[in-house]
Amino acid sequence: MKIAFLLFDDLTALDVIGPYEVLARLPGAEARFLSPDGKPVTTDDGLLGLTPGGSIDDAPDLDVLVVPGGWGTRALALADEHAALRAWVRHIAQDAQVVASVCTGSFVLGAAGLLEGKRATTHWNWVDDLRKWGATPVRERVVDEGSIVTAAGVSSGIDMALTLAARLTAPMVAQAIQLGIEYDPAPPYDAGAPDRAPAEVRSLLEARYRGVEVG
Amino acid sequence: MKIAFLLFDDLTALDVIGPYEVLARLPGAEARFLSPDGKPVTTDDGLLGLTPGGSIDDAPDLDVLVVPGGWGTRALALADEHAALRAWVRHIAQDAQVVASVCTGSFVLGAAGLLEGKRATTHWNWVDDLRKWGATPVRERVVDEGSIVTAAGVSSGIDMALTLAARLTAPMVAQAIQLGIEYDPAPPYDAGAPDRAPAEVRSLLEARYRGVEVG
Repeated sequence: MKIAFLLFDDLTALDVIGPYEVLARLPGAEARFLSPDGKPVTTDDGLLGLTPGGSIDDAPDLDVLVVPGGWGTRALALADEHAALRAWVRHIAQDAQVVASVCTGSFVLGAAGLLEGKRATTHWNWVDDLRKWGATPVRERVVDEGSIVTAAGVSSGIDMALTLAARLTAPMVAQAIQLGIEYDPAPPYDAGAPDRAPAEVRSLLEARYRGVEVG
Repeated sequence: MKIAFLLFDDLTALDVIGPYEVLARLPGAEARFLSPDGKPVTTDDGLLGLTPGGSIDDAPDLDVLVVPGGWGTRALALADEHAALRAWVRHIAQDAQVVASVCTGSFVLGAAGLLEGKRATTHWNWVDDLRKWGATPVRERVVDEGSIVTAAGVSSGIDMALTLAARLTAPMVAQAIQLGIEYDPAPPYDAGAPDRAPAEVRSLLEARYRGVEVG
């Protein structure tokens, strides 16, 4: 099973490392990281370099593709220089079992034409913007439309990948991976969703995100 | 507030990326990744290169140090070539507000002499081995001994970092970060702890880990 994780400049590291830490452990997985040109990329805060195993040209076909989010998704969705990347994502989706996104990675799927008429999600702050790519925005942690699976913000990729792991192999395998990474979450606060976080916490973030476009 | 995340060869990426994605977002944080010699490192499966911002020699003092786990912790804890790394961890701990570990990173803390007489945890499969460094092994997700904080396996670093974020700044800040990374976990199975995973899942992993020493 050929699985790839897309890397690009200004990505959010946890978006991609969460699903990778689950899916790369699948028995028989041939997993790799790919960047558009095969060169290293830098995270959205400039603190960490990530070196992939190859470029998108090294992967003409895949069983599973995971596209993370981060500020860099806007360029991937819209810039002329990334037209080849969008065409590659569209091509991969023709035969892949699953093309999945985490956080604002869904805008890259949208720009590749994969969300038209589909239910989809992304980070809670930008979910309505998915309409611009023809999707029906949904506020769920994982939205499974069969060959297209989108997940909510940043950390949701772990839940999404466990769901995929069970589908691609067996529930027992997903559970073994969950136990291996000791994913028994116990957040000290119940503030991870906008409808349950304190109002002032939500306002703080909304103010910070105001006017920021991601795709 | 100077915060560093240690990188080394054969680390588990999620161990370090989870806490980084929380703590690097703290207001006023001066965060960086460091490797022993400043050179890039490779994850435990060889799939991803991680390029730090400097070496441990660039950081004579820190407020917060996070040490992740992975197969590479055994070399860090025991190999002669890593004596300087262990001395540096010990030195940093003298003035830091917190030295924290995720998963088998606790063995590096142990080898640096920081766990003697303290309660500590690590990945569930290796928790009893903490005795060899003078610690009292505890099966909890986050073990807070003040200036030394240890977390359980791989994904537990996210919970640990949110706990630390609240302590280092304020609960409101930790909650804003939690909402920013949409950490509202919803694993599809309840298999993340050895006492709740199906017995055959646990046996499968125990067989795989048998004889593997991590520190």
